[in-house]
Amino acid sequence: MSKTNPGRFFEDYRIGDVIRHAVPRTVAEGERALYHALYPARHALYSSDEFAADCGLDGSPLDDLIAFHVVFGKTVPDISLNAVANLGYAEGRWLKPVWPGDTLRAESEVIGLKENSNGKSGVVYVRTRGLNQMGEAVLEYVRWVMVRKRDETTPAPAPVLPDLAKAVAAADLVIPEGLTFADYDFELAGEPHRWGDYAVGEIIDHVDGVTIEEAEHMLATRLWQNTAKVHFDATFREDGKRLIYGGHVISMARALSFNGLANAQMIVALNGGAHANPCFAGDTVRAWSEVLDKAETSVPGIGALRLRLVAHKGAAGDHKLRDDQGKYHPQVLLDLDLWVLVPV
Amino acid sequence: MSKTNPGRFFEDYRIGDVIRHAVPRTVAEGERALYHALYPARHALYSSDEFAADCGLDGSPLDDLIAFHVVFGKTVPDISLNAVANLGYAEGRWLKPVWPGDTLRAESEVIGLKENSNGKSGVVYVRTRGLNQMGEAVLEYVRWVMVRKRDETTPAPAPVLPDLAKAVAAADLVIPEGLTFADYDFELAGEPHRWGDYAVGEIIDHVDGVTIEEAEHMLATRLWQNTAKVHFDATFREDGKRLIYGGHVISMARALSFNGLANAQMIVALNGGAHANPCFAGDTVRAWSEVLDKAETSVPGIGALRLRLVAHKGAAGDHKLRDDQGKYHPQVLLDLDLWVLVPV
Amino acid sequence: MSKTNPGRFFEDYRIGDVIRHAVPRTVAEGERALYHALYPARHALYSSDEFAADCGLDGSPLDDLIAFHVVFGKTVPDISLNAVANLGYAEGRWLKPVWPGDTLRAESEVIGLKENSNGKSGVVYVRTRGLNQMGEAVLEYVRWVMVRKRDETTPAPAPVLPDLAKAVAAADLVIPEGLTFADYDFELAGEPHRWGDYAVGEIIDHVDGVTIEEAEHMLATRLWQNTAKVHFDATFREDGKRLIYGGHVISMARALSFNGLANAQMIVALNGGAHANPCFAGDTVRAWSEVLDKAETSVPGIGALRLRLVAHKGAAGDHKLRDDQGKYHPQVLLDLDLWVLVPV
Repeated sequence: MSKTNPGRFFEDYRIGDVIRHAVPRTVAEGERALYHALYPARHALYSSDEFAADCGLDGSPLDDLIAFHVVFGKTVPDISLNAVANLGYAEGRWLKPVWPGDTLRAESEVIGLKENSNGKSGVVYVRTRGLNQMGEAVLEYVRWVMVRKRDETTPAPAPVLPDLAKAVAAADLVIPEGLTFADYDFELAGEPHRWGDYAVGEIIDHVDGVTIEEAEHMLATRLWQNTAKVHFDATFREDGKRLIYGGHVISMARALSFNGLANAQMIVALNGGAHANPCFAGDTVRAWSEVLDKAETSVPGIGALRLRLVAHKGAAGDHKLRDDQGKYHPQVLLDLDLWVLVPV
Repeated sequence: MSKTNPGRFFEDYRIGDVIRHAVPRTVAEGERALYHALYPARHALYSSDEFAADCGLDGSPLDDLIAFHVVFGKTVPDISLNAVANLGYAEGRWLKPVWPGDTLRAESEVIGLKENSNGKSGVVYVRTRGLNQMGEAVLEYVRWVMVRKRDETTPAPAPVLPDLAKAVAAADLVIPEGLTFADYDFELAGEPHRWGDYAVGEIIDHVDGVTIEEAEHMLATRLWQNTAKVHFDATFREDGKRLIYGGHVISMARALSFNGLANAQMIVALNGGAHANPCFAGDTVRAWSEVLDKAETSVPGIGALRLRLVAHKGAAGDHKLRDDQGKYHPQVLLDLDLWVLVPV
Repeated sequence: MSKTNPGRFFEDYRIGDVIRHAVPRTVAEGERALYHALYPARHALYSSDEFAADCGLDGSPLDDLIAFHVVFGKTVPDISLNAVANLGYAEGRWLKPVWPGDTLRAESEVIGLKENSNGKSGVVYVRTRGLNQMGEAVLEYVRWVMVRKRDETTPAPAPVLPDLAKAVAAADLVIPEGLTFADYDFELAGEPHRWGDYAVGEIIDHVDGVTIEEAEHMLATRLWQNTAKVHFDATFREDGKRLIYGGHVISMARALSFNGLANAQMIVALNGGAHANPCFAGDTVRAWSEVLDKAETSVPGIGALRLRLVAHKGAAGDHKLRDDQGKYHPQVLLDLDLWVLVPV
């Protein structure tokens, strides 16, 4: 009857279903400029066509997180419109740069289903792929969300839990074709620190903070065509607050991480992540990073760092993430696990 | 003496005058990206070059309302700087798509004049045309506004009231050259509903709401170079509120209408419209549509729907627009009458 | 130890040092669109490719102040991260238009140093150049800032004070190659006033006002990759206010000056300037200009006006800038001294 999209409920997912998400999107220089207006992004490879050309690329690609947000945004009407919670990410890899003028679309395969014991909801696992206009995958990741059931009396499906890697193996990282750091200009990039200068266990406090405004997170979230009500409608939640799209916090933290990780030019994998606590307008977001691992890559001169990227509000609290019960401290907003590329 | 523009008063308009509006404007991919950041716009034809190419176009044109806002903005210094009220629209037609890189300018012909009985103001009717860099008309519409007199003692001109159509005739709708819905991909467009699925009298509640921020409506209004003080200067009105440009509400409502009208891809006519009540920051805007009429077009496979598009704040109030005295209910912000194109 | 940038202290500058600033930036149509969204910019040469072509250019360059802000932003991490105050500008000249697609970088030469008598800080003078991807200078200006010492016991360097011109000589103004106002269309530009219509000593009140929002000044300041904490972090200052980047006020004032100076198409010199008082969100910014001087240029038909451009909040206060002690009145935000090009 109704012509509007009610979203899918837990019963509407079947293992093996491939959902082709709606509304392809051409992204270009306008999106690039807006990204720089919305986040304090300064990584040189995404700021300068000349710098990118000196790194062997045809020009500056769009920020890796633009690709992520656009693809994620496409999935919202099919995956998370009735989601109670966005539970996790795994096995995320960037596979091709996205260039100005590319058109992105997305599709998701249902790879896991498990009803909750309360019979009211269940967890849905999807592997999402972002595709460009040539049909090439530019990005893939697994996400799992808790989704309400339409009808509590529907019998539970046989549980299927996908076997997900704790982290993408360094050997599986995809280095963009042509990328080289042979003539890398550390002065222009903004910091002298090479891959060899980072030690596993090292923590970098990124110093700067940004106080978030309603107008900004809504501009960002709409730009990625993520139109979940909770981000836009101040009358939707009982407390009158608009919940900030978790991806806005991801981009803010990544941009803040320039200060100390200016040479962590490209994100190539999303090993995992949690939106630890909700973020609201008025919060001042800060970030710190921890080096979790280091690896060589298939390309000489390009090293990989596995980083924990944490966004928090208020004090960093000794870089402790969780309390004794394993619960995230309330000041922690984001706990992300990434592989990035750094000149050796 | 003064070098600043005082705007025109009622006495300054003569029937037949053609006013060539200042400041031509090149619009490109930056304006497209900003449109997506400002409004939850998801109609696929304006989101994806690939989708537009599959519909027979050279690429994705700029949103129809970008053309409208830019042209409207140009007219403000000459038409509505001393306007007391924006009274109505009629006979609006989109005549050519606007492509990234096009330069728009505008001109208006005075087609009606009627002094009010109080001798303090009068109504001015203009037919405005938007022209691209080739001098081709891309848009035309009639607008009438109430304008103050400079001097109450000036004798009233002979009243001239233009004979305006209640609605653009379906036969006069201009279908963009090459447009076809023969290979239309409903899945990518986001909804399965065809022209045949809509019935005259049907009402679609578009479900979503967006709470409006000062920063957003000012960004939008400046982007269209509409610099009327009342939108920007919090000290201008006695209540300290900035009045939101009516076009911001039009674009918000149109974008919200995606949810239920995702296949209403192009706006081709503006039959009429009223900014029923002022909109202010903090208002949560919602929208509903009513199918007023249906028509075939000159192109097989492309149908036209005549829609009433209503923006409101608070509850929809049973989709009632007016009280017993014919006055708009206070929650109604916008009452617009459009023709849109939909795949048959 | 720390990998983050602590900024330079007074002791870190040596006369003759050339600092190559980090993070080159490609600017394009997205930045142009954002500029129009952030400021009520209507000068036709920067709005329309067609208008610019009729003025002999290949198309519309990016706004002169985009070049200034991008170059300024690059210098912040090296020059003003530990600055106590931004004291002045001199000898600023625009040397080449910046075109969409250009990549800008910046370098600064230390040309003056003078320790303050308190031994806690000193004044650093730098001449900054903005360079495009061909290595051509597009902009140069002198700026001086007060910078903290790292260690008060460090001996003071021999003072060096550069000999700075009170104003750029008219003969040194650079007229962009090809620029002509021979076919200038005053109607499309928006005002009839020619160079000859302006008299030295004339004051133009630009009438309009814009109330500033947090989201807007932060979007702007990030767009120029100026990431000084004080503009973004509401917890940084004791009063919880974010200080608005002075350049945001410059662009706002310049855009407001359209109303009365619509034909002051290009800024070609920055003779001097002071950010007289801080600007905060909620302030309503207005502007007035005073004609300080007039000059012919090397190109027939192109005249130069030397303008004082003042931004203020609240009333203009009879266009008085300072009190009896020579201190700026509290309503004055900006006192800028520019050369602009106007059709004769």
